[in-house]
Amino acid sequence: MLVERFAENPIIRPQDVTPSRDDNEVVGAFNAGATVFRGQILLLLRVAERPKDKAADEQVAPILNPHTGEIEHFRAKNDDPAVEIPDSRSFFYNGKINLTSISHLRIARSDDGVHFEIDDRPAVYPQTYYETYGLEDPRITQIGEKWYITYKVVSDHGICTGLLSTEDFEYFERHGIIFCPENLDVVLFPEMIRGEYWALTRPVPMYIGPKAIWGARSDDLIHWGGHCPVITPRPGEFDGGKVGGSCVPIKTDEGWLEIYHGSDIEDRYCLAAALHDLEDPSKVIARSKEPLMQPETDYEIKGFYGNVVFACGHVEKDGEIIIYYGASDEHTAGARTTLDKIMNTLQ
Amino acid sequence: MLVERFAENPIIRPQDVTPSRDDNEVVGAFNAGATVFRGQILLLLRVAERPKDKAADEQVAPILNPHTGEIEHFRAKNDDPAVEIPDSRSFFYNGKINLTSISHLRIARSDDGVHFEIDDRPAVYPQTYYETYGLEDPRITQIGEKWYITYKVVSDHGICTGLLSTEDFEYFERHGIIFCPENLDVVLFPEMIRGEYWALTRPVPMYIGPKAIWGARSDDLIHWGGHCPVITPRPGEFDGGKVGGSCVPIKTDEGWLEIYHGSDIEDRYCLAAALHDLEDPSKVIARSKEPLMQPETDYEIKGFYGNVVFACGHVEKDGEIIIYYGASDEHTAGARTTLDKIMNTLQ
Repeated sequence: MLVERFAENPIIRPQDVTPSRDDNEVVGAFNAGATVFRGQILLLLRVAERPKDKAADEQVAPILNPHTGEIEHFRAKNDDPAVEIPDSRSFFYNGKINLTSISHLRIARSDDGVHFEIDDRPAVYPQTYYETYGLEDPRITQIGEKWYITYKVVSDHGICTGLLSTEDFEYFERHGIIFCPENLDVVLFPEMIRGEYWALTRPVPMYIGPKAIWGARSDDLIHWGGHCPVITPRPGEFDGGKVGGSCVPIKTDEGWLEIYHGSDIEDRYCLAAALHDLEDPSKVIARSKEPLMQPETDYEIKGFYGNVVFACGHVEKDGEIIIYYGASDEHTAGARTTLDKIMNTLQ
Repeated sequence: MLVERFAENPIIRPQDVTPSRDDNEVVGAFNAGATVFRGQILLLLRVAERPKDKAADEQVAPILNPHTGEIEHFRAKNDDPAVEIPDSRSFFYNGKINLTSISHLRIARSDDGVHFEIDDRPAVYPQTYYETYGLEDPRITQIGEKWYITYKVVSDHGICTGLLSTEDFEYFERHGIIFCPENLDVVLFPEMIRGEYWALTRPVPMYIGPKAIWGARSDDLIHWGGHCPVITPRPGEFDGGKVGGSCVPIKTDEGWLEIYHGSDIEDRYCLAAALHDLEDPSKVIARSKEPLMQPETDYEIKGFYGNVVFACGHVEKDGEIIIYYGASDEHTAGARTTLDKIMNTLQ
């Protein structure tokens, strides 16, 4: 078996999370970044909320007003001719997209990696003009004594990648937008490579080009250049629709091992692995022929947005790799594997 | 009159340009970057070519094979059910986009700014894996003793912005991709502002956000960060569809004056102006209420892709500003104006 799912899955469900406001309900606790902090496993959950009083016959979009700091609710009736509903995650009003939930980041801690204590309050909450639709899908990379968190920010201006840093997981410094629209699924390598920081990014081209993983380089983690395509979708295969970085690359003797996600043309999300050259991560040495994980269990197939396994983080523990992944854009689940098992999927 | 078009317009036509190969024809000589070099006005033209033997009943896409350095021709009959033709610039084959021409950069020089001598050979020709569909729409910014050229690169991987530099307009150094897909219409400011280089960029968001002008900052012109939205389309107005930077910003006492382009929902391209704060170009002080230029003449209304005035460069000469602009994606034309006249359009 390539991966062993936790018997306790899903380990964090929306109902396990205290809403940030009394009048909200949590609809998703998923796509968590992961790291080890002060001897504990720390997850930074994406917590998606919506107003509790949402009626069945309406759509509600919670949107930050960056001037007041308040989250306001834009409501529209399902039968309003201006409303179009592509799926559970969003609706259009007169052609303008609205998200049905707004996400913030929340800390959960664990000693055994399975049972988590979840903070009552958000760690990072929508605050800036570029976060008005929320903060999503954090990846945590420890570099020296600091933790850097890339996260997807969503607003009227677009979907971009922001950068946070923290030394204590109490105070988080915002470093602004490091990749302009449309770019998401950004993962930072944990050390400099030949004198430069590296990132995997996922530009979203409008007219030309696949939804592929690109590489970028930086001297300071804030300014990025040297963009180049690295991993492209493989038409007809499980990752033929789009690919994106998932976990922080793991340094091995053979190369940087990246657990990435790929979806097919039906938007079914799997996890797979790629091995990047140690000295030049833009070179891919090998790649999984078959998925490392694919939606199989009930909680992976059904949910807020079904048929999704989507990881934003892993930790190494007792010689194993624990992958924390979002299941169906709703729950957080875990699975154990080993470096050797992942390496064996590569070709 | 806000601008005075040259009586000699269009000053450079496709038939004025020697093809780069005997079996090619030039279909466009337009969207030129402009600068002053060794006392002359220098244009870097975008020269679009296609094979001379293209038949009326077929589509042909000239594509660089980056391994051989040769440009190969992908051909498809118009009545092939796999073919879809949205307009003159491109065709789809089984859903994959192909461009009907491939562009390179060509130098033209002039003493009077109206009559140009055009080089027989290309200055910069498609060469790399990210230039397989061509090099387009250069902007030239002199910084110190060097000229930096941002240009749109197009390939299977996407539409990005590359950077060139030159000291002599003979040898051009490639600095790779400075903005990953999808990003175009990048203009560099001519000096550092509070210790940083600045650029205007035009990300193309897929899911959320307008086609707006963003700002970015850099220490070295290669690595960019600090992305922020700067100028957004104004729904219902002449620039309600999309906006993008056009000319190198002009430093005035009141602020950086940017001549930008904007199109409406019918894709009619006009030029307009914006005034940016001298110390923080992300702050827009004023903006043209009406277009500075709009398609009016025959050569601006009809052509390869009609109803387009699109500038990539200007020069200052004898107290006037000469705007060089692409007319209908086919010709190069010129127009004279003054700083005062442009300033008067602002509100």
